[in-house]
Amino acid sequence: MQISFVLVEPQLGVNIGAVARAMSNFGLTDLRIVNPRDGWPNPDAKQMSAHGLHLIEGAAIHQDLHSAIADLDFIIATSARRRDMQKGCITPKDLTKTIETTSIQKLGILFGRESSGLSNEEVSHAHCLLHIPTSDENKALNLAQASCIVAYELMQVEVPNHEKNQEFARAAKAEIEFLLDKIYKEVKDTDNVDTDRNQRMIKGMRDLLLKAEATSSEIKILHGLLNAISRK
Amino acid sequence: MQISFVLVEPQLGVNIGAVARAMSNFGLTDLRIVNPRDGWPNPDAKQMSAHGLHLIEGAAIHQDLHSAIADLDFIIATSARRRDMQKGCITPKDLTKTIETTSIQKLGILFGRESSGLSNEEVSHAHCLLHIPTSDENKALNLAQASCIVAYELMQVEVPNHEKNQEFARAAKAEIEFLLDKIYKEVKDTDNVDTDRNQRMIKGMRDLLLKAEATSSEIKILHGLLNAISRK
Repeated sequence: MQISFVLVEPQLGVNIGAVARAMSNFGLTDLRIVNPRDGWPNPDAKQMSAHGLHLIEGAAIHQDLHSAIADLDFIIATSARRRDMQKGCITPKDLTKTIETTSIQKLGILFGRESSGLSNEEVSHAHCLLHIPTSDENKALNLAQASCIVAYELMQVEVPNHEKNQEFARAAKAEIEFLLDKIYKEVKDTDNVDTDRNQRMIKGMRDLLLKAEATSSEIKILHGLLNAISRK
Repeated sequence: MQISFVLVEPQLGVNIGAVARAMSNFGLTDLRIVNPRDGWPNPDAKQMSAHGLHLIEGAAIHQDLHSAIADLDFIIATSARRRDMQKGCITPKDLTKTIETTSIQKLGILFGRESSGLSNEEVSHAHCLLHIPTSDENKALNLAQASCIVAYELMQVEVPNHEKNQEFARAAKAEIEFLLDKIYKEVKDTDNVDTDRNQRMIKGMRDLLLKAEATSSEIKILHGLLNAISRK
């Protein structure tokens, strides 16, 4: 299993560096950064990363979340609060069970901006939420702390070596988005309802596909159905 | 059970502040600092502590380790390496078991200097070592990371509410040191061997008392024996 940390619009270089350091401390190597506020490369990030410098130098910079997670087949969004969403919410202690019971090839952990975390739209692309329990008196963990605890817990996980079985393999995020784009275009071309409603329907479809942990085969079936309907 | 974090000669205010923040995030309140390098109070510590400011303002400053741990009955020394010592070594995951199976009233976790950790002499005052497993490629956790992980793990512990039973209660560190001082003075007054050897014997005696988790009653018995012998 490959594990990626995905920082969504991080603000301070020192925090990006601290994430790289913690990843390196606990044996993780794949760092992806979406649209860092202060540009890239960032000297503060390099300086703070200590022996994790190779992660900073090898970090993949993306313009948007979609391209950063396109190849992943399981996505976990960290969240400082339990949100009112139809998503499961796990704690770092549950990571072992989740990983051991869910055949994952490429896992991504999303971390939001220091100021405001992840938006609900961003979270909607995840299979589940991860919440680190804290004292009620002081719930604010910074990016360095949260990434350190998650990396530390992931180091404890015995990753099962699942043989990739094409038939049952969860679809990559990009396969799901490609299908949703196609559905969206079909709907837009053929009806005259307002765009907001179309987007809500697409979001609902995304939720369903993620919750179902849809396989590549199932996505192909949906394509087939869509083609059949649109030729009608 | 009361839990104290004891920072031994910390160097940077920002790190002291980060420890206070992490303690506060995970519901800990008792911070003790031995001889902070840059003096006290330290504005950097205040600034970095965020919502943990009350811990910085309430931190107990000690001139030496002995006074910082005098009232504790179980002491755990964090260590970046497994040392060649006759001490048990646990991981953060073992904290739950250690605490649940060891009737502890006042637990102290020692953290060493950023540059060089704890000396062997300082570690010798602990009942056991705590080592956070890391990647072999990058073992260096900083004080902010180590304290965050330990505080996080301690938050998971269900602390059993042991009734304090005087007869079986582990002696406080100060009771052990008071006895050792008395033995040392007796030995010095009555023989003519060199001081190094005397100190090694005292250290061996300390190791024994900590390993035995000697009770207050047992310390009293040793006082009685010592008195009887020295009156001889």
